[in-house]
Amino acid sequence: MIALDQHPSGRHFLQIPGPSPVPDRILRALSLPTIDHRGPEFAHLGKKVLSGMQRVFQTRHPVVIYPASGTGAWEAALANTMSVGDAVLMFETGHFASLWHKMAQRLRLAPEFLSVPGTDSGTGLPWSWRRGVQADLIEARLRADSGQAIKAVCVVHNETSTGATSDIAAVRRAIDAAGHPALLMVDTISGLGSADYRHDEWGVDVSVSGSQKGLMLPPGISFNALSPKALAVSKAATLPKAYWAWDEIVEMNKGGYWPSTPNTNLLYALSEALDMILEQGLDTVFARHQRWAAGVRRAVRTWGLPIQCADPAVYSPVLTGVVTPVGVDADAIRKLIHDRFDLSLGTGLGKVRGRMFRIGHLGDCNDLTLMAALAGAEMGLKLSGVALAGSGVQAAMEFFASHPAHERLQAAA
Amino acid sequence: MIALDQHPSGRHFLQIPGPSPVPDRILRALSLPTIDHRGPEFAHLGKKVLSGMQRVFQTRHPVVIYPASGTGAWEAALANTMSVGDAVLMFETGHFASLWHKMAQRLRLAPEFLSVPGTDSGTGLPWSWRRGVQADLIEARLRADSGQAIKAVCVVHNETSTGATSDIAAVRRAIDAAGHPALLMVDTISGLGSADYRHDEWGVDVSVSGSQKGLMLPPGISFNALSPKALAVSKAATLPKAYWAWDEIVEMNKGGYWPSTPNTNLLYALSEALDMILEQGLDTVFARHQRWAAGVRRAVRTWGLPIQCADPAVYSPVLTGVVTPVGVDADAIRKLIHDRFDLSLGTGLGKVRGRMFRIGHLGDCNDLTLMAALAGAEMGLKLSGVALAGSGVQAAMEFFASHPAHERLQAAA
Amino acid sequence: MIALDQHPSGRHFLQIPGPSPVPDRILRALSLPTIDHRGPEFAHLGKKVLSGMQRVFQTRHPVVIYPASGTGAWEAALANTMSVGDAVLMFETGHFASLWHKMAQRLRLAPEFLSVPGTDSGTGLPWSWRRGVQADLIEARLRADSGQAIKAVCVVHNETSTGATSDIAAVRRAIDAAGHPALLMVDTISGLGSADYRHDEWGVDVSVSGSQKGLMLPPGISFNALSPKALAVSKAATLPKAYWAWDEIVEMNKGGYWPSTPNTNLLYALSEALDMILEQGLDTVFARHQRWAAGVRRAVRTWGLPIQCADPAVYSPVLTGVVTPVGVDADAIRKLIHDRFDLSLGTGLGKVRGRMFRIGHLGDCNDLTLMAALAGAEMGLKLSGVALAGSGVQAAMEFFASHPAHERLQAAA
Amino acid sequence: MIALDQHPSGRHFLQIPGPSPVPDRILRALSLPTIDHRGPEFAHLGKKVLSGMQRVFQTRHPVVIYPASGTGAWEAALANTMSVGDAVLMFETGHFASLWHKMAQRLRLAPEFLSVPGTDSGTGLPWSWRRGVQADLIEARLRADSGQAIKAVCVVHNETSTGATSDIAAVRRAIDAAGHPALLMVDTISGLGSADYRHDEWGVDVSVSGSQKGLMLPPGISFNALSPKALAVSKAATLPKAYWAWDEIVEMNKGGYWPSTPNTNLLYALSEALDMILEQGLDTVFARHQRWAAGVRRAVRTWGLPIQCADPAVYSPVLTGVVTPVGVDADAIRKLIHDRFDLSLGTGLGKVRGRMFRIGHLGDCNDLTLMAALAGAEMGLKLSGVALAGSGVQAAMEFFASHPAHERLQAAA
Repeated sequence: MIALDQHPSGRHFLQIPGPSPVPDRILRALSLPTIDHRGPEFAHLGKKVLSGMQRVFQTRHPVVIYPASGTGAWEAALANTMSVGDAVLMFETGHFASLWHKMAQRLRLAPEFLSVPGTDSGTGLPWSWRRGVQADLIEARLRADSGQAIKAVCVVHNETSTGATSDIAAVRRAIDAAGHPALLMVDTISGLGSADYRHDEWGVDVSVSGSQKGLMLPPGISFNALSPKALAVSKAATLPKAYWAWDEIVEMNKGGYWPSTPNTNLLYALSEALDMILEQGLDTVFARHQRWAAGVRRAVRTWGLPIQCADPAVYSPVLTGVVTPVGVDADAIRKLIHDRFDLSLGTGLGKVRGRMFRIGHLGDCNDLTLMAALAGAEMGLKLSGVALAGSGVQAAMEFFASHPAHERLQAAA
Repeated sequence: MIALDQHPSGRHFLQIPGPSPVPDRILRALSLPTIDHRGPEFAHLGKKVLSGMQRVFQTRHPVVIYPASGTGAWEAALANTMSVGDAVLMFETGHFASLWHKMAQRLRLAPEFLSVPGTDSGTGLPWSWRRGVQADLIEARLRADSGQAIKAVCVVHNETSTGATSDIAAVRRAIDAAGHPALLMVDTISGLGSADYRHDEWGVDVSVSGSQKGLMLPPGISFNALSPKALAVSKAATLPKAYWAWDEIVEMNKGGYWPSTPNTNLLYALSEALDMILEQGLDTVFARHQRWAAGVRRAVRTWGLPIQCADPAVYSPVLTGVVTPVGVDADAIRKLIHDRFDLSLGTGLGKVRGRMFRIGHLGDCNDLTLMAALAGAEMGLKLSGVALAGSGVQAAMEFFASHPAHERLQAAA
Repeated sequence: MIALDQHPSGRHFLQIPGPSPVPDRILRALSLPTIDHRGPEFAHLGKKVLSGMQRVFQTRHPVVIYPASGTGAWEAALANTMSVGDAVLMFETGHFASLWHKMAQRLRLAPEFLSVPGTDSGTGLPWSWRRGVQADLIEARLRADSGQAIKAVCVVHNETSTGATSDIAAVRRAIDAAGHPALLMVDTISGLGSADYRHDEWGVDVSVSGSQKGLMLPPGISFNALSPKALAVSKAATLPKAYWAWDEIVEMNKGGYWPSTPNTNLLYALSEALDMILEQGLDTVFARHQRWAAGVRRAVRTWGLPIQCADPAVYSPVLTGVVTPVGVDADAIRKLIHDRFDLSLGTGLGKVRGRMFRIGHLGDCNDLTLMAALAGAEMGLKLSGVALAGSGVQAAMEFFASHPAHERLQAAA
Repeated sequence: MIALDQHPSGRHFLQIPGPSPVPDRILRALSLPTIDHRGPEFAHLGKKVLSGMQRVFQTRHPVVIYPASGTGAWEAALANTMSVGDAVLMFETGHFASLWHKMAQRLRLAPEFLSVPGTDSGTGLPWSWRRGVQADLIEARLRADSGQAIKAVCVVHNETSTGATSDIAAVRRAIDAAGHPALLMVDTISGLGSADYRHDEWGVDVSVSGSQKGLMLPPGISFNALSPKALAVSKAATLPKAYWAWDEIVEMNKGGYWPSTPNTNLLYALSEALDMILEQGLDTVFARHQRWAAGVRRAVRTWGLPIQCADPAVYSPVLTGVVTPVGVDADAIRKLIHDRFDLSLGTGLGKVRGRMFRIGHLGDCNDLTLMAALAGAEMGLKLSGVALAGSGVQAAMEFFASHPAHERLQAAA
């Protein structure tokens, strides 16, 4: 059996913003024997995970599950709703927004990439990668689109490369204020199940998500949540679609089945994850991530290092980006931390490569998992010669000790 | 945890032609903790499974692994090599050939569907669904294509819906004899790892396969094996492609990584499967499946029921289709067998729906697994009122007892 | 990881009378991370399995769980209740009764071994190994013990070496009829959870059992169920006891804990097994085993081979002993079957070594598991040159097909 | 499936001195299907684990494996070598030495309990519970035993209740210096596999160990390592013995089998553990534990709290006892830490109940596991109102950062 033994002892600390640590219960469910995806037992599983995912997306409309990574679900959102040459308005919040934009180009759409201009003189980083989506810029652009050529507005809810969680309701209000018929398509791959997300209430037409973040599964399945409008638009859209086509899937899902072979064992894991998440309640899960995020930010501030996200209103509950001093290679620090302390931190991507690292605080974590991660980071920073203003570890301990989790308070009551 | 308890006791017998039974070792490997797909440990895993898959496809050229089901890998083969309107020559061997043909239509190609005409008066089934690919028909059609409009010949190696394993080398010879430049694209989703398959030697340009058959994994990953010619053709092909695009994947695979998130835990399972298969040797694995198939056919013949595949030269080593008497609903028999004997058999698909069932004899089986399946089928047929000419179970016992596996003989030597 | 790869493909058929096949659910529960056996979470587990085991033993009195094999629980029964030199009346029903007798000697008790005299001329086997406990012989012996020197009557409920399930209630009646105060101690290691067993109703003082039979766990934990009388007797008994001592265990069990370290992960598995068994109901479980046993006996009779147990009133629902013809080495047949067909059958033990093999039909089985086992046995017998009167496989198929399980009928209702 | 969900999120930190955290690989091996313990495949497993355990005990003589907890292996050591009334010299090092002493009494031996007299005025704790075995006291006592009535000297290698690892070679020298024939029996239940231990070189006659400490298994199997002298003595010893009897086990072990049913699945786990430990090398494993222990002691000293073990020469590499201030209930602190931070620490046992807690630093740990444990302890101490002299977490980070593991240096070389 594959040994995975780069480190000879102990559990790896996987504190990247996804894949998140997978709970032991879920790994056990994953390993149950594969059943016939056309048999009667499967239908129970299929219906259960489909309705469970509706609760997680907070929608009454169909959710489509793909045996694919999140990138596939991005493509599905575009392939079902767009035609070659369609104008799409996208917003640069970081690397994943940029990748989705690049995908739209590859699919021969005509994406326009809105962005906050300029560079932060303090860190040397682009402002657009330190902020969330600016709904006012979107509203202005849509108002200018008098011919309504723009077919969709595509934004990232939780930008995994920077740690900014944008206000999606505000984007919907911007579209409505502009009186524009464009679809609202949202990537919440790393937001769903960790950060509050409301597909129906926020008027999202297509939500895109994946398994390996807040849902605490291994990678391999991804999602589209749909609106009736998106379904209607898909009838006329002409990008070639087969594997991703919603129509056949939604139809067969009514019976708990799929037209092509579903990812059976990952659906076992999804079933288990839904049991865990929905039993606790989404609000409890969201509050837990917010608390972790607050503790981690306390540490970063105490180190005296800039938090990548410069707008406190959109701090991510899922991850925190830590900007390293100019001249220090963040990836060298990450490598040292990995090799010495068996801790994986997220790398800087795209325009911030080598300038930051990311601490994931999502999924199957607890206070001590995060303390371990912060200790590893603090030791690694010091060993790399980064001068720290104070001990982030100390600050985080003070925070976690003095801020018991709400669920803890409830349990004690 | 999901109970999967429709039957209160004992192990389910999953004798459908895929998903095949997954070995316990592989299920355990599947459940190991997920690691960072951008970390150093992952590169070892990535390189190992990529080179192992080359050995299984018997190719020196790149193999692409998708987090997707086999249907996705079909789309990948077409999306990378074709442009809207391209003529493609496909061959009707059964349901899966038909689905691939339908996909080509959905992707707005111009597929032509060659087929053996006529209906077998004995069973009432179409001849095309009881035979393999007819290379001479393909050669004739290509010779007629003087303008070389046909861009690809697409055939199914092991037709999972009927149990015919076509002669792919003969198709290559037919293309060459016609002097035609069309690509040869082959679906060996259910053949690879069970039936002999030689990507390079047979001159295949794109081979398509999946995880849940001979590779003995759960569903969720699928494959394209490429030829240099296919890679060259993909540069100019204009179907929109992003998720499926070979270029970026092949480039990043050199380091053991993927551009988007790979299906980490299924790659653990693949690593384990490769250890098992390659240690035994492909020839041993192929011989094992041939022997099982011979035993199962002995049983079906003794029952006096027609084998779906009417051409002994292309009997599948992977599955055997059993045609039920006219007027008997094969799916009612299957349901009775499932409910009474906790055995899943494959349903009749498409043009043979309700007229046959399929016995899978692939993957993690042994003689007694097949005896159990045959016993369940024989009891179910009798309980359903099907008159049997003799006991297939008895015949199969005689066959298996008198034909020890070659590997058994080797072990004894 | 250990490969367990003597057979290159497929699942092993473990049809010995224990260890029985372990359900996949239980294996997954077994593999959950070990917790602190002194922590708060453990107490819930401890209390759950203790009360669940009371239901399985059908007792309101304490059940003691040992981290030990069944042999350890035998010793515990004796060590807690006996003093050096104590007379114990035991009954020879086969190998395990003999081993318990030998243990009593090693512990320096004075065991007397009652036995049915004589040898069956047909098979050459001792009559005592083909029958159950003879309550009348026990009654007579106790009546003769006017000084009441005999401290305990020790019998085996389900004799795993022969396939006879004795009438324990009759033994209790015999003791009472003799007006004798001896304790009744019963080994139901292989009976519990498969054959009906009623600790309280039958007036048993100490019941001994193990994990790897009807409870469907791996070996490693074993049990004593107690009566108030046994507990009282243990206060005065003077065999040295420490690890096995009931007093401390029973006391600490009240809080869900143990004085020494319990077998945590096997208790996870026990918890899962109890969920499975008690949810289905003991009566359903017992009826299932009786039906399997009837089908297997049908096969053995059709082969024309003697069933080891010569008294139909005590046929075991757990296993069937098959006597091989004089001059045929049963172990050579078993080896051939193991090597060729990946099937483990039970060996002949003690006085019947080489003269019989045992088919286990207990635990996580179903009709097809048993059909596979019978097919393997039938092929092996024939390959070994044993002349069979008919096809036991055919007979069993007829039986199973014509006798649907009661639970199946219920499900259909 | 059992939920083990007292804490809703994240992995539990099991930092008690056993059971230690079980590696994921071992948990997977544990869950493989149970095989026939009388079949041919089992013999390979049996021989492998027996010879592997010889390497771990550093002995050429037989090792006996029991399906039992460590308490059972204590009993086995005494039951095989002693007779009722035999004098045994034991040494009070803490709770486990006391329990073994109590067991000797229960088994009706005549144990004498040597002890360092007095109480430490600083902590109020008995001096004997803050030191290791005093070989000079043993030598003096043996010299006084002119009639050689003392049959064995029994000491604890690593006293799990205090964190003192005694010098066993010194005890052997003391016995030899006294020219006394007593057996040397050593409990290394919590030492083996973490602290250096040499059965042959140190002249130990019976070593006792268990699975759930340095071997990183769940509890359920335990060990006796023997000397030829111990085997010879066992022939004449008259304590009743059956389950524990070495003779039959050692004899059957030659073929890889056991007389009674072994703990098959825990032997799978043991096989995996041996692969891990022996591949790394015992010296690497011992050095790793010493380094962890040094880091943890640095933290405790910085807090200003006394380390339970008052003799630096015998500091345990396995665990560190932390004495809490007079008037502070250590168990209340432990409970708070468990409830708030999902961290299990060891309780104070026997004479130090409520006065200390124990930090386990053994088995499947790494630097960050320990940092997490120290952070949890530090937060818990502060929340409990314990005044700390400084941040132990800070001190431990400095230690671990500035003292890279030897294996890390080797890997880099």
